[in-house]
Amino acid sequence: MDEKLARMRPDKAPAWRTLVKLARRPFDLAASDALSPRRINTMKSEAAGLRLLYATERVTPDVLQALQELASQTQAVGQFARMMRGEVMNEIVGHPSERRQVLHTASRNVFDDLPCKHDAAQAEATGKARAQLARLKDFLSEVEREGRFTDLVQVGIGGSDLGPRALYIALKAFWKKGRRVHFVSNVDPDDTAAVLDGLDLSRTLVCVVSKSGTTLETLTNERLVAARFERAGLKPKDHFVAVTAEGSPMDDPAKYLRSFHMYDYIGGRYSATSMVGGVALGFGLGYDSFLEILRGAREMDLNALNPNARKNLPLLAALLGIWNRNFLGYETLAILPYSQVLSRFVAHIQQLDMESNGKRVDRCGRPVPYATGPIVWGEPGTNGQHAFYQLIHQSETIVPCEFIGFRQSQLGEDLEVEGTTSQQKLVANLLAQSVALATGKRDDNPNKVFPGNRPSSLLIADRLAPRTLGALLAYYENKVAFQGFIWNINSFDQEGVQLGKLLANKFLAHFKGAPNALGPGERALLKAAGLA
Amino acid sequence: MDEKLARMRPDKAPAWRTLVKLARRPFDLAASDALSPRRINTMKSEAAGLRLLYATERVTPDVLQALQELASQTQAVGQFARMMRGEVMNEIVGHPSERRQVLHTASRNVFDDLPCKHDAAQAEATGKARAQLARLKDFLSEVEREGRFTDLVQVGIGGSDLGPRALYIALKAFWKKGRRVHFVSNVDPDDTAAVLDGLDLSRTLVCVVSKSGTTLETLTNERLVAARFERAGLKPKDHFVAVTAEGSPMDDPAKYLRSFHMYDYIGGRYSATSMVGGVALGFGLGYDSFLEILRGAREMDLNALNPNARKNLPLLAALLGIWNRNFLGYETLAILPYSQVLSRFVAHIQQLDMESNGKRVDRCGRPVPYATGPIVWGEPGTNGQHAFYQLIHQSETIVPCEFIGFRQSQLGEDLEVEGTTSQQKLVANLLAQSVALATGKRDDNPNKVFPGNRPSSLLIADRLAPRTLGALLAYYENKVAFQGFIWNINSFDQEGVQLGKLLANKFLAHFKGAPNALGPGERALLKAAGLA
Repeated sequence: MDEKLARMRPDKAPAWRTLVKLARRPFDLAASDALSPRRINTMKSEAAGLRLLYATERVTPDVLQALQELASQTQAVGQFARMMRGEVMNEIVGHPSERRQVLHTASRNVFDDLPCKHDAAQAEATGKARAQLARLKDFLSEVEREGRFTDLVQVGIGGSDLGPRALYIALKAFWKKGRRVHFVSNVDPDDTAAVLDGLDLSRTLVCVVSKSGTTLETLTNERLVAARFERAGLKPKDHFVAVTAEGSPMDDPAKYLRSFHMYDYIGGRYSATSMVGGVALGFGLGYDSFLEILRGAREMDLNALNPNARKNLPLLAALLGIWNRNFLGYETLAILPYSQVLSRFVAHIQQLDMESNGKRVDRCGRPVPYATGPIVWGEPGTNGQHAFYQLIHQSETIVPCEFIGFRQSQLGEDLEVEGTTSQQKLVANLLAQSVALATGKRDDNPNKVFPGNRPSSLLIADRLAPRTLGALLAYYENKVAFQGFIWNINSFDQEGVQLGKLLANKFLAHFKGAPNALGPGERALLKAAGLA
Repeated sequence: MDEKLARMRPDKAPAWRTLVKLARRPFDLAASDALSPRRINTMKSEAAGLRLLYATERVTPDVLQALQELASQTQAVGQFARMMRGEVMNEIVGHPSERRQVLHTASRNVFDDLPCKHDAAQAEATGKARAQLARLKDFLSEVEREGRFTDLVQVGIGGSDLGPRALYIALKAFWKKGRRVHFVSNVDPDDTAAVLDGLDLSRTLVCVVSKSGTTLETLTNERLVAARFERAGLKPKDHFVAVTAEGSPMDDPAKYLRSFHMYDYIGGRYSATSMVGGVALGFGLGYDSFLEILRGAREMDLNALNPNARKNLPLLAALLGIWNRNFLGYETLAILPYSQVLSRFVAHIQQLDMESNGKRVDRCGRPVPYATGPIVWGEPGTNGQHAFYQLIHQSETIVPCEFIGFRQSQLGEDLEVEGTTSQQKLVANLLAQSVALATGKRDDNPNKVFPGNRPSSLLIADRLAPRTLGALLAYYENKVAFQGFIWNINSFDQEGVQLGKLLANKFLAHFKGAPNALGPGERALLKAAGLA
């Protein structure tokens, strides 16, 4: 990648210094009339069917101006365009590193009727994405025609699990009749057994997903599942489909009913719109619904190229997050969807954000002197209101919140109770929380005091349909990428997972009887745990 | 409650000052040989089938001694005994407050063969618990005899949902054949519809749980579910069971097949071992398994009376948490169970901890000048390793971790792949993570450096069975109570949820047509969200 970019220090940018000053007196959301109609109407932005309201963040026009300048001074949008064009953005300059392109956006750059100005540069990746989609369409037609399969079990972990699982659950209302998708991820043997119990294996497809073809959990679970098929007198080869990198140990068409490819320029946590999500989602929702997800994501990718932060939704969200993290000093971020089917979506965004931006060195290997990615957590509302909102409202630990809501329900089945529908109750709570966190409440009883001034934003759309969900997914992918670009960290590797793997292998070697695999402390730990 | 206790200032205790000093140089887990066999063997403790290993926390014998003194100087165990004896511990002295006893421990003080030294004082609550259990046993026998019901839908939210749901899912291996339990909580209408689809309502029991009998979400969902029964030509009265406080609007036996009582001295988040969990868990797991849960919880309650912090597991955990939160300054706590069936257990503990201790005033209403409850979050391992562990290992944002593991799997279905079983892989990863976080790793490549010194503890048991789960539940309940006692905050109220309810009602009034329910800012927000 560009060396000058890799040596950039965002905290030396003029806008950073301006923001430090502005953060000494952040906007007082709890002042009377702070939430004026004028403020609310000017602090909103819309793209790809999503509307972002941010009057309840602790920002002023000055702050927004400085954030825009920070984006310009760090070339945030320029870097995004470089990424989309296929420059090597996954790199630590001057040290051995993955040195890869980052081209998950190519997996949805497949629509002739949407603008494609970067096509020439990323033509190869786009071509491969189109070819895999054609193969998928063909495969799904065959499945449809033959009518042999009712269930699909996706075997994968991390990015090969969370994204596809989150999207599938979120689109419950769109599942194809008579089709079900299941997920096996954890190496926990109970999990695999529980998923397989009750399936008619003769009518079940298994989709094994591992880019490297060497992921321990996935290979183990593939064997566990295959053993079940064999015990039932079925040949895994007639049921198993592979999604893996070209040339990986798993890339062996002789062993699978069908093979699909993923590419080293798509990281696991960014892979839901590639074949990693495509096979399972296409099977469960239908090919056309999967394409709709891609379309929404593509629309949001195009929005991310807008240099005006107030019109670029993911960039705006990234900047508001940086304001909260680096200038107001908040360590966590709660994502609170007012839709039960988004329960696993939060877990996916948690992975996406924390694995991408939980980093301590910049893109030339220097420790960064400023905070990077926050701890992301959350549960659907209104449930969360009855669980952890107590702390959010009244503790002195401030938690910035991102609310997500929809104007209509997915299924349309509703009932008036006490004069309002459930959907009305849901959105009433959503808006009320945002206002309550901002304005707080005085009271003579100190235990009933709400200090207010807790920042939040609200993302709202019409109805949670495939296209909206694709836009929502890309909104977060692009937000996370923007934050990484501005912080000058590599959002696309994950060296932090290696040490645990290494040590786990030592314990496994010990279990297999290797005499000196463990040091004295490790042996003592094993014994103290009652596992020796 | 005792006024002197309510006026206590833990940060003025001599031990607190000692701890401030000790925190200037916390134990260096990353030093070579820091994890010595001696350290590992001395830093462990066991009770009620759970073993806690804490050599990977940043503590020394001096720190442990000072923490023990802090517990003594704040009368932590004495306060716990007062709570169990039925003193009014839910109170803000000098201000209007709930002024209630806190007697969830009575709900499991029902075993003649376990020590019951506090029986006389809490006789009334224990008597009521026994009476409700007898009614439950009778009801479940009738259900069994008649064989009319295969499914139960629990309608409740917050404590009436998360605890029972978490326990039910955790005990998958123990579900009674042909019985299933489902949960409806969110006011999201899609959620209710999705749960009811595919049920044979003629064979379905519905258990409606609300202490006050006025919870908006629960009443709404009860009506939604009842409407489904009526459309199917079934009478709700023949299928619906109520769990509510004596005298609540829901306490109307004429409307329910059976009614069970909960009491104002059991808070929602502490109610899983009362009838709130009893009906659903008894139906799904059988009465005897429910009793086993209570037995494990009772054993852990008795352990919590031990004044020696090194032998009192929940107190030890509370003190280690206080060390991390108040003296090392860590804002969050990750709970990481290496068991997929504990996925919702983390959400329950999140509620339990954050709703209890996310507070800003002490028990006489003064703002507290020290940090209180942490933000609790987490997902099962090994899945989390492929998601957010990157940040835990390599970011400069330190996250204390509580690992939970089991020596055996629940179902016993396992397979050797590459020489080890899945269960071995699971525990190898568990131990490896704990060591990796503590010791870190040097490397010439800055992107492969692991700073180490990230504190964790490890809670391990034989197998996740009902009794173990009961002990695990009470371990956390009691840990949270101990932290509240030491911080001198009221862990048993939740005033922080009121403002959101109040404002939601304003929006609902507006939806119902009230002309002046909303202020100009709120109307602008509704319009900006596209909801007007």
